[in-house]
Amino acid sequence: MAVLSRASFRYSLSCVPWAETKLIDRIRKLAPNGAGRGVIQGIGDDCAVLRLSPSSRDELLITTDLCVENVHFRRAWHPPRSVGHRCLARGLSDIAAMGGEPLGCFLSLGLTSQLPQRWVDAFLDGLLRLARRFKVSLAGGDISASRQIVADIVVAGRVPRGKALLRSGARPGDLIYVTGALGGSAAVLNGLYAGKRASTLASSAHFYPQPRVEIGNWLRRRGLANAMIDLSDGLSTDLAHICRESHVTAAIRAANVPVAKGADLALALHGGEDYELLFTARPGARIPSLMDRVEVTEIGSIGSAKDYSSAIQILDENGHRQTLRPQGWEHFRKRIQKRR
Amino acid sequence: MAVLSRASFRYSLSCVPWAETKLIDRIRKLAPNGAGRGVIQGIGDDCAVLRLSPSSRDELLITTDLCVENVHFRRAWHPPRSVGHRCLARGLSDIAAMGGEPLGCFLSLGLTSQLPQRWVDAFLDGLLRLARRFKVSLAGGDISASRQIVADIVVAGRVPRGKALLRSGARPGDLIYVTGALGGSAAVLNGLYAGKRASTLASSAHFYPQPRVEIGNWLRRRGLANAMIDLSDGLSTDLAHICRESHVTAAIRAANVPVAKGADLALALHGGEDYELLFTARPGARIPSLMDRVEVTEIGSIGSAKDYSSAIQILDENGHRQTLRPQGWEHFRKRIQKRR
Repeated sequence: MAVLSRASFRYSLSCVPWAETKLIDRIRKLAPNGAGRGVIQGIGDDCAVLRLSPSSRDELLITTDLCVENVHFRRAWHPPRSVGHRCLARGLSDIAAMGGEPLGCFLSLGLTSQLPQRWVDAFLDGLLRLARRFKVSLAGGDISASRQIVADIVVAGRVPRGKALLRSGARPGDLIYVTGALGGSAAVLNGLYAGKRASTLASSAHFYPQPRVEIGNWLRRRGLANAMIDLSDGLSTDLAHICRESHVTAAIRAANVPVAKGADLALALHGGEDYELLFTARPGARIPSLMDRVEVTEIGSIGSAKDYSSAIQILDENGHRQTLRPQGWEHFRKRIQKRR
Repeated sequence: MAVLSRASFRYSLSCVPWAETKLIDRIRKLAPNGAGRGVIQGIGDDCAVLRLSPSSRDELLITTDLCVENVHFRRAWHPPRSVGHRCLARGLSDIAAMGGEPLGCFLSLGLTSQLPQRWVDAFLDGLLRLARRFKVSLAGGDISASRQIVADIVVAGRVPRGKALLRSGARPGDLIYVTGALGGSAAVLNGLYAGKRASTLASSAHFYPQPRVEIGNWLRRRGLANAMIDLSDGLSTDLAHICRESHVTAAIRAANVPVAKGADLALALHGGEDYELLFTARPGARIPSLMDRVEVTEIGSIGSAKDYSSAIQILDENGHRQTLRPQGWEHFRKRIQKRR
């Protein structure tokens, strides 16, 4: 029973005066080790995996995502409908990354005293539209007053026993795939920083990211993926999670990384908030190049090694090899906070 | 499938400019109706009840509780160990109120930039000590920067299929019981407002409330209780929830209400945050007067009626009958905010 055996509390501690990893170490040091009943996978993956009873055919997935005003969104930039959508999309994307089926969601909401009713209405509308699309009920929650808008979303899902796709399943020789195109969300954010107006159409990868629930499910049902993670923190950071949890290294080819319209390679590698899926599969696995109308691209392969500090190598167009350091979403978040 | 069929988002919206009930109505109006898979009990009880698969022997309980600095606690009053304890105690008490067994918890934490490390350490220590006592793992969570401390706790638990003790199970003729003594937590809070120093010993009902998990479980296993709720918002408010959800009325005898040391009847009726259990049982049920070393007191009975606006009658020592209006915890919370 892997309880608190891995560290992956999320990466949003930029303005807290100690490193987020140090806080995780603290939590792990203080937390009970293996004391929990029914916890198959604790801290260290996109969702926790729990088993309700020894005979259960399905396992429970749970994920929580905290969205804080001026950290994860700005009211001046993000329409409330988008904030509600993004809030639930983060949770659904975590369920997708385990190959799970979402069942219900829970919303804890901190609201400021000056907040207009229409903001809350539109926020809920954005969240509930996405919920309806995935047949997910809003099954509970909590409400409080607060000094800035806070929305913690919990999504519960299920996956057949032992079938959750973990970060720790990658094997040397596996090929690495990503869905969709990367960097589009960060490119929009860059534009917003530069004072540009951004299109908030429903097709925007930044304002209305589409969690890849069907693709995650399909890969799990077919048994095609060995490891999976969603690209929330950026390819360089999320692939590093896979490497650390699987005790492997990775090599990716820059020329193969699918760069979204308006983005560049750096944004595709480090931008974050794409909510696409990154997965590994054995070389012979038949991975379609199009799934659920989304392109799937092979970008590299998994190797075996022990030094995770230079776990990811990237090959540029000229055949030069470089270490790819994780430098994901944290950057951008810091900037949201610093500039406000 | 009772999805969003009842309204009971919690009662902490005091400084938001619209009524909390109006917001719930909004959520219900906007929310999908019956669209969710596996949701047996949605909004409207201490926990949501979900079924992972049609054949599951156990059902899943999930509850979320949002704690916000200066709304649910003050740093000047509440030691961080107490804040962590209270945070998890709220969630465990919700699981207790369903007769459930807690399995794992999840913590979303918003931390301010000036917060000393020792505050977070002590907060986690308070939370994890209580977690260990109930063999509950901290199985995941999320961390963000925020302008005030925010802690959203999620507790997942299990209960045998169809056996969850709901608010809606009270029947005319049932007797009403409470565990422990009431008003003690609110009495301490009153003292803090008045500038008194309070003992923050582990025995304090305010700083270290004890969730009644064993009692809730025992009542459920024996099939003794028809309806149950935890006393988080105050007896008058929480009994009104039972009445509304069960479509019944209630009559309680003032003389029977167990008043905690330092409290008075008003605090026992309306004070909140006692985290004792309130339950109803058929007249013949053998309810022990002491359970898990906690006194259990019969305080009145359930009647049948349709007018829930005067659902609860209270008989004073002189036999005078009065309508008891719900006026729970909200009051106190308003005061925490107004006076800071």
